[in-house]
Amino acid sequence: MKLMFLGTGAGMPAKARNVTSIALQLLEERQSIWLFDCGEATQHQILHTSIKPRKIEKIFLTHLHGDHIYGLPGFISSRSFQGGTDLVTIYGPKGVEEFVRTSLSISQSHLSYPLQFVETTEGTIFEDEQFKVVAKKLDHGIATFGYRIIEKDLPGALQVDKLKELAIKPGPIYQKLKNGEKVKLENGTVLDGRDFLGPSQKGRIVTILGDTRYTENSIELSIDADLLIHEATFADGDEKLAFEYFHSTTTQAAKIARLANVKRLILTHISSRYQTDVDLDNLEKEAQAFFPATTLAQDFMEVELPKKRG
Amino acid sequence: MKLMFLGTGAGMPAKARNVTSIALQLLEERQSIWLFDCGEATQHQILHTSIKPRKIEKIFLTHLHGDHIYGLPGFISSRSFQGGTDLVTIYGPKGVEEFVRTSLSISQSHLSYPLQFVETTEGTIFEDEQFKVVAKKLDHGIATFGYRIIEKDLPGALQVDKLKELAIKPGPIYQKLKNGEKVKLENGTVLDGRDFLGPSQKGRIVTILGDTRYTENSIELSIDADLLIHEATFADGDEKLAFEYFHSTTTQAAKIARLANVKRLILTHISSRYQTDVDLDNLEKEAQAFFPATTLAQDFMEVELPKKRG
Repeated sequence: MKLMFLGTGAGMPAKARNVTSIALQLLEERQSIWLFDCGEATQHQILHTSIKPRKIEKIFLTHLHGDHIYGLPGFISSRSFQGGTDLVTIYGPKGVEEFVRTSLSISQSHLSYPLQFVETTEGTIFEDEQFKVVAKKLDHGIATFGYRIIEKDLPGALQVDKLKELAIKPGPIYQKLKNGEKVKLENGTVLDGRDFLGPSQKGRIVTILGDTRYTENSIELSIDADLLIHEATFADGDEKLAFEYFHSTTTQAAKIARLANVKRLILTHISSRYQTDVDLDNLEKEAQAFFPATTLAQDFMEVELPKKRG
Repeated sequence: MKLMFLGTGAGMPAKARNVTSIALQLLEERQSIWLFDCGEATQHQILHTSIKPRKIEKIFLTHLHGDHIYGLPGFISSRSFQGGTDLVTIYGPKGVEEFVRTSLSISQSHLSYPLQFVETTEGTIFEDEQFKVVAKKLDHGIATFGYRIIEKDLPGALQVDKLKELAIKPGPIYQKLKNGEKVKLENGTVLDGRDFLGPSQKGRIVTILGDTRYTENSIELSIDADLLIHEATFADGDEKLAFEYFHSTTTQAAKIARLANVKRLILTHISSRYQTDVDLDNLEKEAQAFFPATTLAQDFMEVELPKKRG
């Protein structure tokens, strides 16, 4: 599980930062990638990474402001040009389907793969045996959501080599042992499944919030997360401006991280008014004063989320 | 009059070439810039030039394929963020207004300037005292147009200093002289307006074609142009492929330039299959064999069109 920041700027593209997009790379977990937001030129950013568009399985949109969605039609079309055949599911507030379908239809773009839309509402918007994604409303003037991505706990893998050493052949017994059950062999020996399981793995939690004012819902989405990605459009002290424009300051983001007891905070959606190393360093330090494990994102920054023992 | 190639690639963005956009800079002529096509990330390309988005007065779209229009919503929104207040007129085939209005409305983008749409059809689509723009259909499977931009001839400027030396004061007489008329002064002297005019200037002609197969209409649009910009998606020999995909080869473009008696040809819309210097050099040479004054465009290439004596 790795994250790649494809765009970390606010509102408009700038030379140093593109508009928002984050790739959650689940290659080891499910051989696919999930994209969060898709600002204009996200596909251009991808050209400079090892990300393969055909691996992108889901796109989650936090809200429909242009700097978060204008890259969709181009990304979707190019993925088809490049021969993608697997379904892509797009989760987002009402309106995204109309935007995408109109763009594709007017440009007469015909896709080589199916496209599915799921309207984001509060609650569980996706769940399978591996992952669950929960959405909650944020406070940004336009319908905006934060996403809590919950990886399910993984039981330890059956240590087949150990069983083979005991000359136990594959069969229904393997499944019982894998479930941690006790099994009595024909010769009377009792095997305890738990002795043949590798270490179990605890699921990780990543919370990716859209643009937002400081809000209680951000805390609920972030409780005990291994990683929280929060916007920080303004510097500490600009709370009034942040409120007026429905955004957050560095310290507001850090407070959310502290109250939610997350392990790590990454700040993104950085305004182009902050350009110098000193400015950016200050933003990071302001947040670190409240929450030390804070990093300020930059385009193409990659973050690995280590596996957790159960 | 200067042209800047903002994107010279075909179909999809690549590291070396962005998708199509050309800026016709008329700063000296009318303090404004006209854009031809606006592929995704055109606003990103502009960040690396001296072009000011608020100076862009008109956008002409050759056709509505994604690689020619997906940059519109972002460009239009950012021009507003940056405080543009002047009207922008967008000329293009039916459908562009729906695409732009849907994009802006779904992203709740409110502009600080008015936006006007003119549906491109064959004939004169714009004319004022300085310029005339004529459109004609091309052959690209989807409604596609080429544009012939005709600068009107400029009479010589009135040499006011010369008149002041003769102690002739500004008044209606200036206008008559400026029109090249003869004027009798109170003292009986006859002044010939033509003696007080600077050199006249012949209007320039630039023809910018959209994606197209080899077609007669391209010749008509290009007759005697000072500059023809023609696509060359395929190499010489790939005529069958070019026909199948509604595109042109290098030599087909060169033949149009020769038959139309243009002064200069620039090839653009270069497929990313041609990447090495040798490949690109070959494309240019293939065209030069039929039309020597050919240049292969690259992103950020700038071309100046010198003034012409009348």
